[in-house]
Order: sequence, then structure tokens, then C-alpha cells
Amino acid sequence: MVPRPQAPPVAIARWRSGAWREERDQVAAEEPLQISLDGAPLSIVMRTPGNDLELALGLLLAEQVIRSPDDVASVRISAESAEIDVAIPVTADLVESNQIDIHLRSAAGRRPERSFLSSSACGVCGATTVESLALDFPMLEPGPVLDALVLPPLADRLREQQRIFESTGGLHAAGLFDRAGTLELLREDIGRHNAVDKVVGRAFLDRLLPLRDRVLAVSGRAGYEVVQKAVAAGIPILAAVGAPSSLAVATAERFGMTLVGFLREDRFNVYTSPERIGR
Amino acid sequence: MVPRPQAPPVAIARWRSGAWREERDQVAAEEPLQISLDGAPLSIVMRTPGNDLELALGLLLAEQVIRSPDDVASVRISAESAEIDVAIPVTADLVESNQIDIHLRSAAGRRPERSFLSSSACGVCGATTVESLALDFPMLEPGPVLDALVLPPLADRLREQQRIFESTGGLHAAGLFDRAGTLELLREDIGRHNAVDKVVGRAFLDRLLPLRDRVLAVSGRAGYEVVQKAVAAGIPILAAVGAPSSLAVATAERFGMTLVGFLREDRFNVYTSPERIGR
Repeated sequence: MVPRPQAPPVAIARWRSGAWREERDQVAAEEPLQISLDGAPLSIVMRTPGNDLELALGLLLAEQVIRSPDDVASVRISAESAEIDVAIPVTADLVESNQIDIHLRSAAGRRPERSFLSSSACGVCGATTVESLALDFPMLEPGPVLDALVLPPLADRLREQQRIFESTGGLHAAGLFDRAGTLELLREDIGRHNAVDKVVGRAFLDRLLPLRDRVLAVSGRAGYEVVQKAVAAGIPILAAVGAPSSLAVATAERFGMTLVGFLREDRFNVYTSPERIGR
Repeated sequence: MVPRPQAPPVAIARWRSGAWREERDQVAAEEPLQISLDGAPLSIVMRTPGNDLELALGLLLAEQVIRSPDDVASVRISAESAEIDVAIPVTADLVESNQIDIHLRSAAGRRPERSFLSSSACGVCGATTVESLALDFPMLEPGPVLDALVLPPLADRLREQQRIFESTGGLHAAGLFDRAGTLELLREDIGRHNAVDKVVGRAFLDRLLPLRDRVLAVSGRAGYEVVQKAVAAGIPILAAVGAPSSLAVATAERFGMTLVGFLREDRFNVYTSPERIGR
């Protein structure tokens, strides 16, 4: 299989020390892969396309569904995933993209009792295109418009607060900020998407949804999951310290969210809906 | 709920520029949380304990299982998760730890068609303790013994190879190295666990398992999932550029794996089975 770690370049607005530049940027490719076992859908994982057979087999091995290549009778895989240099029979004839179907030898392997393999990016189940991924969340409303200078300090504010809680270097943080950049709520977790769930769950309990006027800042990268969760909470601006994925960008675009990446003390990139950031 | 982001300190061996020191280190707490809906198990997520109700509600909201606090009739939660400052009825009476059970009002919410919420850390399904998490993988065999000087360059070697493939800053890498520190196989993915699955899947296809003599190095942190996948492949030494989690340490210990964290060019920490690293 030919690795396709990069999606096509996207147009971004780059802010640095007060100056804006229009540029193009590479983002890491993220797409769902539906894994089936003997023709029955087992799970969807969000992954970077390429080496999909390896991914599926590695996953099934870790789950003890298979133990040896001899447990695999044959594999069907999407037509775009050609050229597979393996000793087991593989046909690249599935018409839908992002699909792999592992057929087990009858004596070997075991079908897991439940569909355990799905990602916690739950919106993706059974969906293999951006359009079908989109649950029926409403589009985000226009506004608010934020001063660009509000954004850069958020990364530091997240880190400062984190320092108070932890000394492990192993936790992600999600922080909810108001339009002036004041931190309202911080949650930490080993999983970035969990930290977001905790923030949203707290606001949900306090009946503050939709969070129309807020900015959600997250440590690390922004994948599809984090964008989906922010959309569900009605948050119009999401700022990540790290890089966004292709599916994060596409999902933010679909719902009219402003997606900011590489948030640093003197700069950031805007991937979608830059109209919410004042110039 | 009282946040418990830190697990008890663990004993580690710290290597720096050729010198060893025995120390204690904080690691981020990672434990499974079983989420049930109306008494029926729905999913397990790996998370840092604390704010579990927020986590579960945020997750169910993102999945459109619930839309308002009025959709929730009551909540039962593990006894250790006391003190919950919320407007919905919560009883902290579940005897087993790491459990939460959300009861919906009959008219509201929808039970999802499938158990979509589980983490891709599939071994955890239905398991809530380290012991029950452990699938029946064999213990790793003793050996090999590695020269400590072999480890520090691996982080750079991983990054160098990555630079060849990507310019997005958004991909994780997993690399399989031999005992001399030579890179044999590199895979990248937006998900660190996917990169590991791809490496293991390739070795599986090539009938190289168990990978008795190899070191697996990963960018970023080492959580439970990555350790589980390395154990499944029989890899005795796992080295992460970032921090390990408490459950990663416990799982490595359970299977006799050497777990290395904070791998840098002049130092690293050994969390378990230090006997595989020469002194």
C-alpha cells in the first residue's frame, strides 16, 4: 500500500505578532476505516490512510481475534488501496473507500463478543465520508468576533493552570475561555477528548449550552473527535496548541466553526471561518 | 468529585548521561470507566479518574444520546466518587469502582444502536481492574539485555525518519529497532496506537512474531493501549518519548515488559523491568 500521510494542502490565515498572511498548509490526513470481519462490520477507527491491512491485522492481533497469518483466509479491501505485498490472498475490489473486510478460516480466530473496536469518536460509526460522519448538529451561529490578541496567551494560561494540578507531564488539558480570554473552566485527562468531554459535561450540567460566546483551547493536537465534541456543545471557536487533522478541518468547515491550530505565544494559524477573528 | 489526576508515586531508575539514579516519579492516573445506560453496560473508556459524571454526560451529549439535563432521570456512580455538586439526582452507591450508570427519562434520549463508545483499547471491555484487563497473553521472556547507550539516540532516529515523510507536525510514529538500535520498520499515523498496530501488523504478516529481540519506540506518551499492543506482539522493551500512564506501568509490570519513558538524547526513565538495560 502506498502511504498517504498527507491530505491536499489547505488555505490558512497565519497570524504572527500582529501581521496576517494567507498561506497554504499541509495537514495530517485523518479518515475513518471500517473494519469488517467475515463481511459483518466490526468497527470504525480513525486513522491516517495507508498500510490499512497492517493496521487491521495489528488491531485484531492485539484483541486476540487472530494469532497467526494462517488464521486469515482472505482479505477484501477498498479499490484505492492497491499494491499489497503480502502472502495472504487480498482483493482490492471494495467499491466504497476506507473499508477492509477480513475473512477468517473457520477453525481459527474468534469473533469478539461485542463491537469493541470502535474509536471513542463515536459519530463515525458506520460512516465513511465527511458528509455521513456529520450527525445532525445545527450549524454554529455567526459570531462572536474575537480580538486576535486574545488568542496567543491562552496556550500559556492553559499550561500555568495545569502546573498547579499536575507534575506528571502526562495529562492533556481543555480550557473554556470567555471572549476576553479569561479562563472559566479547566479539566485535565490522559485523553484530550476526555478533557473536552469533562468541560462540556460540566457546562451541560450547569445548563450553559450552547456555549455561543466561548473559546475552547486544548493542549496537543485537534482531531475529528475534539471538533465534533465542540460542535455538539455549540462552541464557535476551537484553538489547539498542536496541529489539526484533515478531518478536523473538514468538520469545522462543515459546521461553520473557527478552527485555530499551532497556538503559541506569538502566533497561530486559522484553518476555517477566520471571520470570527478581528483583523 | 475530587480530581485524582495523579496515581501514587512509582519507583523508577533514571539514566542521565551514563549515570543511574533510583528515584520516585509521579505518573498520570489512567483507569477504565465503565459507562452504563439504564443499567446496561454501554462502553468502557480509559480516562484519568475524577469528574466522571461530567465525562459521561459530555460523551453522551456528543453522541446525541442526551440533549439536556432534563433527559437524565438519575445517576448511579461508584462509591468512591462522592461529593457531586449537580442538580440531578446522583447516588454514589455502586460497589465496584470505576462505574457510572446513567438512567434516562423514558421519553428522552435514545439508546445508540451499537456500543459505539468503547475505546480502541479493546482489551478493556468489561474489565475494570488491571487483573481483569489482562488478556491471556503469555508473560514476556527474560532478555534481551540492551546497552543503555542504545536507547537515547532512538528518539532522534524516529524524528529524522519522520521528517522524510511528513511536514504536518500532526503524525505520531512507532519504530521497531533491533538490539543495536538500528531502525527496522517505521509507521506513522495520526493515532499513536494505530502506528503501533501498523508496525505489529507488518511484522505479523512477515511471520516475525513474537518480536523477542526488539525495541519498540513511540513518539509521545505511552498509555495502556500501546503497552497492550506491544505485549501482544511479544516485544520486551517499549520506549516512549513522552510520559507513561499509571495503567501502562501496571500492565508492563504484569507482563514483565521493560517500560522506558521520557526518552531524550541524554536521558530516559525506566519504570519496569530495568534488568533488560545494562548498567
